[in-house]
Amino acid sequence: MAVYTDVGDADLEALLQAYDLGAFLSFKGIAEGVENSNFLLRTEKGSFILTLYEKRVAEADLPFFLGLMEHLSKHGIRCPLPVKGRDGSALRRVAGRPAVIVTFLDGLSLRRPRNFHCAEVGRTLAEMHLAARDFTLRRENALSVAGWEKLVAMSRSRADTVEHGLAATIAEELAFLRANWPAGLPEGVIHADLFPDNVFFLSDRLTGIIDFYFACNDRLAYDLAIGLNAWCFGANGDFNLGKGRAMIEAYQNVRALEPAEREALPILARGAALRFLLTRLYDWLEVPPGALVTPKDPLEYSRKLRFHQRVRSASEYGLDA
Amino acid sequence: MAVYTDVGDADLEALLQAYDLGAFLSFKGIAEGVENSNFLLRTEKGSFILTLYEKRVAEADLPFFLGLMEHLSKHGIRCPLPVKGRDGSALRRVAGRPAVIVTFLDGLSLRRPRNFHCAEVGRTLAEMHLAARDFTLRRENALSVAGWEKLVAMSRSRADTVEHGLAATIAEELAFLRANWPAGLPEGVIHADLFPDNVFFLSDRLTGIIDFYFACNDRLAYDLAIGLNAWCFGANGDFNLGKGRAMIEAYQNVRALEPAEREALPILARGAALRFLLTRLYDWLEVPPGALVTPKDPLEYSRKLRFHQRVRSASEYGLDA
Repeated sequence: MAVYTDVGDADLEALLQAYDLGAFLSFKGIAEGVENSNFLLRTEKGSFILTLYEKRVAEADLPFFLGLMEHLSKHGIRCPLPVKGRDGSALRRVAGRPAVIVTFLDGLSLRRPRNFHCAEVGRTLAEMHLAARDFTLRRENALSVAGWEKLVAMSRSRADTVEHGLAATIAEELAFLRANWPAGLPEGVIHADLFPDNVFFLSDRLTGIIDFYFACNDRLAYDLAIGLNAWCFGANGDFNLGKGRAMIEAYQNVRALEPAEREALPILARGAALRFLLTRLYDWLEVPPGALVTPKDPLEYSRKLRFHQRVRSASEYGLDA
Repeated sequence: MAVYTDVGDADLEALLQAYDLGAFLSFKGIAEGVENSNFLLRTEKGSFILTLYEKRVAEADLPFFLGLMEHLSKHGIRCPLPVKGRDGSALRRVAGRPAVIVTFLDGLSLRRPRNFHCAEVGRTLAEMHLAARDFTLRRENALSVAGWEKLVAMSRSRADTVEHGLAATIAEELAFLRANWPAGLPEGVIHADLFPDNVFFLSDRLTGIIDFYFACNDRLAYDLAIGLNAWCFGANGDFNLGKGRAMIEAYQNVRALEPAEREALPILARGAALRFLLTRLYDWLEVPPGALVTPKDPLEYSRKLRFHQRVRSASEYGLDA
């Protein structure tokens, strides 16, 4: 849950004077997003989300994130649209933080997605990749190979307190990926964090994608590899071939993977597993004792990594030969 | 902020099947209430709050709380109305907890109420006291003199770590109140926790009172004494006579205080200050180190208590002679 900064009635009144949103109706802090403070705002014009950016989001990246949401929204992707004030600007300051009001999306995130949900996600991911082709801003992926090296350095000495042998597993995998990380694949803007938490459904229809704060320029197929990790393992921890096939087929119905991307999928999936293993491990080791936040289990991703290490071809993810 | 219990899409779907609320639209955990988990629920029929009762609310008290909200709502008090399912029952279980869906109230709680807001609160408090006269359920006040004694026993040994001399101040005050706590005053159902957090305003009009989970049968004027403590001290810590007068006058325009209540007001105000000093002190001493919850400052109420100890008559609160 996330309300790190307190917004009072006076802050809110001052903020709303900058917009044409009609009379104010209600305002509640909500438990959504882990990087920022989020509030549900209702006015005569409808429902909105007010986000205050906390220290984990770099202010210099905000034009990229907000510009991307606006661009995707205009191209038919169901994502929050930053609302501009009377001065034409969407970005302003509230309670000393950079802040933005975005449109509200109906829907609910799923705990146990079924195959057709995975297909909806694959299709929307490809549509997003196509819609972002003419987006002109760029952002490097801070959590690619160089970023993993920094995370490894920070957690190396304590990794084995979480799982025996984990430090060696990570070091070997990092060395392998550094030597084999694929170059020359089609690149573009990727979401880079398309977990079930960040996708809303209503009556089995995908109604929204949120949380673009890891979006960056990288290999497009890496986004699909992240999706396979996030959506296509069953509750028992095993990869679910039906879910994988549903996601990949739906993706390819919109944007066909090139041969090099198909071939690279297992190594991209290893990279994605390592990336989430490393950030979860860092959060696991850094969370203060007694804190109310429960960090996500890093070992879920060491198990997924071991699965991908055994994969010999993308057909094991459900990609048709 | 308060979301202690996780509610998944499957829990929610099962819950909504028990109601006639139309199709589901959205669901978000909200940062409201410290005793319970609260979620904002939107359906085709409108906005609602789903509350899951955590361990600090006794399940046996729920019929009193829910019945009171329904009774007050029917008598024109703007408070959440428990929504009944198709089986006629408002109380059910979600994720293993007792749970209820109530109507949503627009408005915003204020940080710095002005005199006319205090008047709105005084008027509404009296209207609530009158509206509850024919409510038939009863609940003893667990946080009156006997309850204070238990809280004193739990914090006595550590009180002086918070403020030098606090343990003695509390012991003397408790002895005084035990000997002088007024009997024979008009009694009825009181809210017992009508702080600014629990009152919503929209364009300076009171739009809702929430959080009835301390409501009980006690002296009606004690509720007004709690209100004077909660609303009528300025940011500088001094009692604000203008706010006090506004609240008391507006209360009396609806329900005139009896002479015995007017006379008892200073001692009731001392009791109210001690009650919030003791619960805040307990929370202050019990909060685990590193927890994300910031307990409220108990010393705000030791200062208020000292003010009330010097008061010689209710005219010092703004009550006309």
